[in-house]
Amino acid sequence: MENIYAKRVEKIRSIMRKKGWDAVIISGSDPHSSEYMAPRWHQVEWVSGYSGEGEIVITLDHAGLWTDTRYFIQAAKQLPGTGIELHKTRVPDQVLIPEWLANVAFPSTNDKLVAVAVDGDCQAISDVNDIIDAFKASGREEYKIVNAPEMLSELWEDRPDIPQTSIITLGDEQVGWSRIQKISWLRKFLMEKECDAILLTALDEIAWTLNVRGSDIDYNPVVMSYLLVSMDEVNWYVKKRAIPKSDQETIDSFYELKADGVNIRDYSDIAIELASLSDEDGDRKLFADPSTLNYNLYNILMGNPSASVMTGKSPVALRKSIKNSVEIAGMKEAHYEDGLAMEKFLHWLETTVNSGAIISEYDAAVKLGEFRSQIPGYRGDSFETVSAWGEGAALPHYITPKDGSTTIGNHGLYLNDSGGQYLFGTTDITRTVALGPCTHLEKEDYTIVLKGHIGLAMAVFPKGTAGCQIDVLAREPMWKTFRNFGHGTGHGIGFYLNVHEGPQDIRQNFNRQAIVPGMITSNEPRIYREGLHGVRHESLVLCVEADKNEFGEFLKFETLTLCHIDTAPIIKELLNDEEKTWLNEYNERVYRELSPRLPIEVAQWLRKKTLPI
Amino acid sequence: MENIYAKRVEKIRSIMRKKGWDAVIISGSDPHSSEYMAPRWHQVEWVSGYSGEGEIVITLDHAGLWTDTRYFIQAAKQLPGTGIELHKTRVPDQVLIPEWLANVAFPSTNDKLVAVAVDGDCQAISDVNDIIDAFKASGREEYKIVNAPEMLSELWEDRPDIPQTSIITLGDEQVGWSRIQKISWLRKFLMEKECDAILLTALDEIAWTLNVRGSDIDYNPVVMSYLLVSMDEVNWYVKKRAIPKSDQETIDSFYELKADGVNIRDYSDIAIELASLSDEDGDRKLFADPSTLNYNLYNILMGNPSASVMTGKSPVALRKSIKNSVEIAGMKEAHYEDGLAMEKFLHWLETTVNSGAIISEYDAAVKLGEFRSQIPGYRGDSFETVSAWGEGAALPHYITPKDGSTTIGNHGLYLNDSGGQYLFGTTDITRTVALGPCTHLEKEDYTIVLKGHIGLAMAVFPKGTAGCQIDVLAREPMWKTFRNFGHGTGHGIGFYLNVHEGPQDIRQNFNRQAIVPGMITSNEPRIYREGLHGVRHESLVLCVEADKNEFGEFLKFETLTLCHIDTAPIIKELLNDEEKTWLNEYNERVYRELSPRLPIEVAQWLRKKTLPI
Repeated sequence: MENIYAKRVEKIRSIMRKKGWDAVIISGSDPHSSEYMAPRWHQVEWVSGYSGEGEIVITLDHAGLWTDTRYFIQAAKQLPGTGIELHKTRVPDQVLIPEWLANVAFPSTNDKLVAVAVDGDCQAISDVNDIIDAFKASGREEYKIVNAPEMLSELWEDRPDIPQTSIITLGDEQVGWSRIQKISWLRKFLMEKECDAILLTALDEIAWTLNVRGSDIDYNPVVMSYLLVSMDEVNWYVKKRAIPKSDQETIDSFYELKADGVNIRDYSDIAIELASLSDEDGDRKLFADPSTLNYNLYNILMGNPSASVMTGKSPVALRKSIKNSVEIAGMKEAHYEDGLAMEKFLHWLETTVNSGAIISEYDAAVKLGEFRSQIPGYRGDSFETVSAWGEGAALPHYITPKDGSTTIGNHGLYLNDSGGQYLFGTTDITRTVALGPCTHLEKEDYTIVLKGHIGLAMAVFPKGTAGCQIDVLAREPMWKTFRNFGHGTGHGIGFYLNVHEGPQDIRQNFNRQAIVPGMITSNEPRIYREGLHGVRHESLVLCVEADKNEFGEFLKFETLTLCHIDTAPIIKELLNDEEKTWLNEYNERVYRELSPRLPIEVAQWLRKKTLPI
Repeated sequence: MENIYAKRVEKIRSIMRKKGWDAVIISGSDPHSSEYMAPRWHQVEWVSGYSGEGEIVITLDHAGLWTDTRYFIQAAKQLPGTGIELHKTRVPDQVLIPEWLANVAFPSTNDKLVAVAVDGDCQAISDVNDIIDAFKASGREEYKIVNAPEMLSELWEDRPDIPQTSIITLGDEQVGWSRIQKISWLRKFLMEKECDAILLTALDEIAWTLNVRGSDIDYNPVVMSYLLVSMDEVNWYVKKRAIPKSDQETIDSFYELKADGVNIRDYSDIAIELASLSDEDGDRKLFADPSTLNYNLYNILMGNPSASVMTGKSPVALRKSIKNSVEIAGMKEAHYEDGLAMEKFLHWLETTVNSGAIISEYDAAVKLGEFRSQIPGYRGDSFETVSAWGEGAALPHYITPKDGSTTIGNHGLYLNDSGGQYLFGTTDITRTVALGPCTHLEKEDYTIVLKGHIGLAMAVFPKGTAGCQIDVLAREPMWKTFRNFGHGTGHGIGFYLNVHEGPQDIRQNFNRQAIVPGMITSNEPRIYREGLHGVRHESLVLCVEADKNEFGEFLKFETLTLCHIDTAPIIKELLNDEEKTWLNEYNERVYRELSPRLPIEVAQWLRKKTLPI
């Protein structure tokens, strides 16, 4: 058994035998249920070598990775030799971890009780409750959940520390709503719910509430912290012990926050605080969101006789998703600047490839980063750029390798999915362009995905409509030609915050959250042709009011993203007049708005690219 | 206080005072949760004079009718003078009966306990559970549900009897699946669920299982009964005491059923049976569907120490909705015959109106009934015909009055929504036709609703897709022009059974039931212009397989209804090429299939009506 990961799994099994655990769940998240984590919480990768999203379950005779359609190919490449088997999710016959645990036969154990150990720091209580519910549903009553925070630390010698980066604050003129206003809004919520305090645990919700940003997680401008807001106190639990004197940004931010009544406490103090919460009348009622409150903190709260917990959806999630006028203006500026960078990049790409120069997918990603970094207020990318030519674009979450990435050829389709973080907004765009002659299938796929993109972009819908009720508008052109894609069509996006946020989305899943004016969501239908090519057209759309009459109130989308859609690979006969009109108007708008700020040769090139079809 | 209904409400209040009830719910259904009821269970109409769907709640100081958008206009006409107020449902700020009861202030009562009396015969346990849940959610803990079956009988002197009509059986060659096969399939279900017996309470489910039909409820060919299937017995509880010797059909049916092992018991014996159910081991586990099991029977079961109940969705509902090949062939025949009758009718209507003859909406309905009744195997209509010209068509559930119905003019739109019951199937069709010049708004509405109808008719979707995920295909052309309609787009339909059945539907509500090959559903988008006109285009569609490839399995619809769509009111510029092609192909198919069996003058007329646009 040479494989380093197989050895790690065996070491975990030694601990399991010692402690009497029958199963261990290796969490795919951090103490805040973050989608992306700082390296300290790359537990799944440390255990398995697999670097995508997912969770691992280890029993004494089995080890499995649970992940969804997006990562099947990657898992198939990275898992062999580890002894870890792939369990597929988001497939019709999926068995999720809770059901699997509740129904699997365990090898004989010391006692009859099935012990499932979870890293309570990194498992939300809603996840643990799912496991408990599955055991109840299976009729298997002899089980226990073992809270084992930091279970890997004794094996993981060089485990990275909790990150601690500089913190900045955003002014009211940048965000429209001051932290004092947000806190007083939260206190109204507490009065309605008859609670004494709210504990915010999701990092983007905390950053939004305090109007602070950091860079503790790559691409996600958040600060590792907890926020406890009561009727008379605001306590922010954040890594603060070793702020270097040179870090004037953080020092200034702390001063500003203190001036606004925010007490700065240490990140690790949250456990002590929750354990000792009390009130004159002996009961302190805390509101928390079970989808991001971790099991360990929950247990601490439950162990405090003076505290009680009301769980429910955090009010911040919805409020944060509905951008105010200042945020909308910022997002529009971000898309204007980002569009200029994209057009400069696409011009550079086409002329460079056509000149016969040898450039790789990675070179292209670097070049785009250079264009973006020239924008004042640029704070880095909003996620790792996907720069893929040919079959690389057929991988849903292609990571463009630094070394040995494919050389871009002068034919076929090139796909770029990327985005920037700016002090005034966040972008996320995908454009697919032809770098020369394309196959008929490439053209057909390109055009049909475009029909879906336009179908959703043109949508009009009554107030109260949820994303799952309009998702088909992006899919029906594909379904009609017996094509489909296994993911969502759209996700919410933060204002200089995480590139993925809820509560709304546009996908097949039954998410009842309505699309509300002010929400910004992506519109990104796609096709993957394994081994051949991939197509994706992605713009961000803002929900706005459309009309109000005897039939009700109607909403529509305004496309924020400004970057032309390549007309070269289009099979015109597949577009109807309405679709052609939308496309021509969109490309004309891109030219009109961007050309005044583009270098003359790029503007001239863009004029040709945006001629009507 | 002269109003007869106001007096009835007061009489009910006298009973309430005597019994100490704080609220009484007047059920809008019968002991089987039927959508349409025999006259004995027209309680709501008896109490209020209001003849639409809905439920009434009476307290000592309030009386209210709860009903949805379809009936607001009708309620507004029928309620004045009764003292009963309209409570609107299916509107954004609706407060349903359970929430209303749990939160309303009651006038001081004899004791602190709020007593809500329900007619346990006519209230499903799921309805009662909703009330209990609402009280729990409101934090109001002092309430009790009083089971008061037959509560109105002492006031309602001439209350009609439980109906008892002739019963027929359908042969295996008519239905494809024998009752013996269906019973053995139910027994497999019982084994899976580890239950001893299943109690079927929904009338259409019983008719389907036993392959029997009756006419106990207008338009619904069902038999008032209960069915108890155990591992070794099949007991059918049905009105049988006074079968006249002349009723050879029923006598023969009972013989046939007995020969297949079905014991015929009296309808009223179900209560005794459930009260005395027992087993050797002292526990008899019964499966029942809480949405159609009434509260009274449930209480009887709960009072039997030897019985226990497992509640869940009846397996019959889904199985019944997936038509087998014999049923599909029958439904196609029904639509062929029904289409001939419709074309004869539309030809008659147009020529008669154009000849200057005075005919009313009601005359037209009668004439259509005549054409249908000439079809061998015709068993009556599947619901009350809506025959409406002009503004009558703007009422969602217009009842064409026998006396004083509108004279049909030689201009504008005429709408006919009707259907037939045949031994080999059930139909439900709406056609809107121009009887001369139309206004621009009529034409625009006509064309836009047609776009929606075609959008859904052409739908292709992956296996597993639910109706709410494709409903938008019928709505988006309306939404784009800021139009909408407040109902569902499609309902399931039985095989020579109820014209409305589940479990699938096509509407905005989140019904997770997938559309499965073999299901037949209506496609009926519409527009109502109050005071002006209404448009509806309705055909039934059969779900069939479309393709299977690397992207999955795809399904589509086949339109079963055969009757041309009038091209006269169409604004051609509003249809795209794909829509025109669908329409021309459909009309050509109607002509090709129907014309050989139509009288020559109708066939010639139909040729002109189906020329391509």
